[in-house]
Amino acid sequence: MTPTGSVMLREIAEQPTTVAGTVERLRPLAGEIRDLVGERRRVLLVARGTSDNAAVYGQYLLATRAGVLGVPASPSLATLYRAGLDLRDVVAVGISQSGGTAEIVEALDDARRCGARTVAVTNVADSPLALGADLALVTAAGREVAVPATKTYTAQLVALAVLALAVADDADLLARLDDLPAAVDRMLGTADAAAALADRLADVERLVVSARGLALSTAREVALKLQEACHVAAVGLSSADLQHGPIAMLDARTPALLLASPTDDAVAPGMVELARRCRASGADVHVVGGDDALGSLADARLAGPDAPIDLPAELAPIPLVVPGQLLAESLARAKGLDPDTPRGLSKVTQTA
Amino acid sequence: MTPTGSVMLREIAEQPTTVAGTVERLRPLAGEIRDLVGERRRVLLVARGTSDNAAVYGQYLLATRAGVLGVPASPSLATLYRAGLDLRDVVAVGISQSGGTAEIVEALDDARRCGARTVAVTNVADSPLALGADLALVTAAGREVAVPATKTYTAQLVALAVLALAVADDADLLARLDDLPAAVDRMLGTADAAAALADRLADVERLVVSARGLALSTAREVALKLQEACHVAAVGLSSADLQHGPIAMLDARTPALLLASPTDDAVAPGMVELARRCRASGADVHVVGGDDALGSLADARLAGPDAPIDLPAELAPIPLVVPGQLLAESLARAKGLDPDTPRGLSKVTQTA
Repeated sequence: MTPTGSVMLREIAEQPTTVAGTVERLRPLAGEIRDLVGERRRVLLVARGTSDNAAVYGQYLLATRAGVLGVPASPSLATLYRAGLDLRDVVAVGISQSGGTAEIVEALDDARRCGARTVAVTNVADSPLALGADLALVTAAGREVAVPATKTYTAQLVALAVLALAVADDADLLARLDDLPAAVDRMLGTADAAAALADRLADVERLVVSARGLALSTAREVALKLQEACHVAAVGLSSADLQHGPIAMLDARTPALLLASPTDDAVAPGMVELARRCRASGADVHVVGGDDALGSLADARLAGPDAPIDLPAELAPIPLVVPGQLLAESLARAKGLDPDTPRGLSKVTQTA
Repeated sequence: MTPTGSVMLREIAEQPTTVAGTVERLRPLAGEIRDLVGERRRVLLVARGTSDNAAVYGQYLLATRAGVLGVPASPSLATLYRAGLDLRDVVAVGISQSGGTAEIVEALDDARRCGARTVAVTNVADSPLALGADLALVTAAGREVAVPATKTYTAQLVALAVLALAVADDADLLARLDDLPAAVDRMLGTADAAAALADRLADVERLVVSARGLALSTAREVALKLQEACHVAAVGLSSADLQHGPIAMLDARTPALLLASPTDDAVAPGMVELARRCRASGADVHVVGGDDALGSLADARLAGPDAPIDLPAELAPIPLVVPGQLLAESLARAKGLDPDTPRGLSKVTQTA
């Protein structure tokens, strides 16, 4: 792929390098992470937006690999209501690309005052978040210019994988991190298929994005990219929540985009069943990843057999997001929008 | 209001009675709840769909009033990945209207095997969820027939309020539960205004619903009602997350519905700032509740000075959802849909 288009596209294409650099920088900290976590088996994940989607991945990985209860915590609890919780058995992880979002910095400060040990996951080494934390996991994504975060998101996933796998003392999966750059690079090969799907979706204004388990983070992140960059009303939610009501939204003008790691056998039957229900509603069903059974139900498919994701389910969400990023970038341009600067947004977001 | 329309409307109108009955039934269990929770300061909330929105309310109330870390837990963690967490310091609360949703029952069973004490919040006394739990908080909503849950949702909020306030040993707020039925009844007086707003929104296909803090549960629940009953692509999220990206979706055809408890001073300035940003994007801004500053920025307003919510911020989300329920019911009919039976849905949802 020759990244001649937007800055967003260029940054998507940098990910084999930024993922490799982040693995190289953070994996050596595994021992330090284990020491800091010690016997604590509760991890509070404090984040907003894209970083909050990374937190969902961290939560699943901590629970399934490390036996640790990851808690996605709203910064509002600390910054708005000053809840004085006892957090002495907790590690609080603040996730912020810039490390400068005030409410995340304040929430991590509050967690420390409540007794928690603190970890920063950020792309800026001298940011308030990094400087204030007991341990800083500084990603190596380089400066990100496009407003929709892409390479900083995958770098955050790598940081959270290192964190969870360090706590789990899982040498095998820590070693498999070396396979990520090639897997991400292979996903860049879906660019043409993503552009073709984008052309097909050019008039779509509403969309459902769904996944389950470890890939739920990916569905939420792809929905957010489609909201930001393409102004599509994308509803991103788990396949189970979708079937509890929102599936009523689907129709011929409201397609479903289903994501699944081809190697995640735990979710595969449920995703096939979901695809059948979506098709029955008259909606087009598009798939990213998935096994053959899911692929056979897809109107269009990215990251199928031509660009396979051959990583364990625990790591697959890192390459899996890339075709979704490419789709959002292409769809923005297909809609005549500039993906780099969505209306009404700037890069560091402060919220009152 | 004369409930001559849908079953959903009749069930909305029953809420003063069902809320009163639930308070009467569950408040006497405060001592039993305190005994069961003991010194545990971690509460896992396991739910899907509407019940998961109630869980968000429980999480905020537990943190802000009881100093307890409430953890919205995905049933997937237990049912798909069999994560063997150590939950001996945890109370696991399973929330399900029917008490028969298999994944919630299984997740609570798993939590028990991991050492947790268990609480069921359900509307069915002899359901598997209630029978399997250490303590059952059985709501008094009566049989619910319409697919979109309304009276069982507010009954769940009451149950979670009793739970959190019992743990907090907050006699004042436990006493204030007596004010709920009248407050909910007053909200039924917004039916005409809700119908007028529904007429205005009849052609709307996408919408953003937002709130912050304790009312975030309400925004998520109203978005879900609009998805289910009206097939609107309603994106429900916190005001902070909205401003982190999805605000780019707003335009003249994509209005914002902002909800705020008039008595929640912690969120008031942020909601006014959000309303200004939404208006600047060219979107119509409609408000449920809010203070005068927020109301002055509204194109249409429900539950304003004519139908005030004069409850503490901790309890205000219970009446606050009612105008949103009425809006969803009216909008479904304005769109020519039957609110009682959204396409593709039935009442008890099993997810694979």
